[in-house]
Amino acid sequence: MSKVVEHNGVVYIAGTTAPDTSVGMKQQTEQVLARIDGHLSVGGTDKSKLLSATVYISDMSQKPAMNEAWNAWIDPANPPTRACVAVELGTPSTLVEIVVNAHK
Amino acid sequence: MSKVVEHNGVVYIAGTTAPDTSVGMKQQTEQVLARIDGHLSVGGTDKSKLLSATVYISDMSQKPAMNEAWNAWIDPANPPTRACVAVELGTPSTLVEIVVNAHK
Amino acid sequence: MSKVVEHNGVVYIAGTTAPDTSVGMKQQTEQVLARIDGHLSVGGTDKSKLLSATVYISDMSQKPAMNEAWNAWIDPANPPTRACVAVELGTPSTLVEIVVNAHK
Repeated sequence: MSKVVEHNGVVYIAGTTAPDTSVGMKQQTEQVLARIDGHLSVGGTDKSKLLSATVYISDMSQKPAMNEAWNAWIDPANPPTRACVAVELGTPSTLVEIVVNAHK
Repeated sequence: MSKVVEHNGVVYIAGTTAPDTSVGMKQQTEQVLARIDGHLSVGGTDKSKLLSATVYISDMSQKPAMNEAWNAWIDPANPPTRACVAVELGTPSTLVEIVVNAHK
Repeated sequence: MSKVVEHNGVVYIAGTTAPDTSVGMKQQTEQVLARIDGHLSVGGTDKSKLLSATVYISDMSQKPAMNEAWNAWIDPANPPTRACVAVELGTPSTLVEIVVNAHK
């Protein structure tokens, strides 16, 4: 799969997980968002141009910890739409996976 | 997060849940769809211009009750694409969350 | 719902499952991808123009079998972005449901 695909001014970013899943939800989310920053940069855009996000977490009781990292990261003037649901992720230690798209 | 984001003629609506989660699946879905009508209106569009939808429900056995409300709401001449999966939602009493996008 | 919706050069395909759910994950995924080929064709496009994909599977332990079919199908020069999560699908025997969009 691709990490970044662009078409007609919209940049699609693959489902992104933390490289180090030994840490907790807040830290994994921080790692995910840092990787997304990198992917957005590859696509020629940044977090101020997000359109929509899907946040998959492994345990809904940890949503507040995810939100701490999310709220610290997001551009408050340009937040995307978002949905957050709890599912089973790729490995038992993976606590969060985030999908976003953005315009350029 | 934003409830409504628009870019290049496409309107993205956030994951939408029912304000009153004390009621059953059909009624929660009706509430969700009424809120989505409002969000679409804010974005300058309406349900006849939906593109795609993701329906998250908390219990697959209640999909028929969700569909009753969905089928009564949708514009039969212009239905969106849809996927419906069961996941854990934001609170135990939240039975349905719907994400849509639409053109203008 | 619609199987295929097009707007402004982007083709949205509905969540697609296998017609025969008596078979295993790899075969169900092959069936899903064959149906998606048909839907993409209806939309005037093909798998070399995929933008993003969401793969819902019923059991994360069967992700490798899904990937066998996925990797054999995808255009290696133009893979889409992808997220893969495990959820409850529409029937107990449904092992995989895939959502994609593509440009024309």
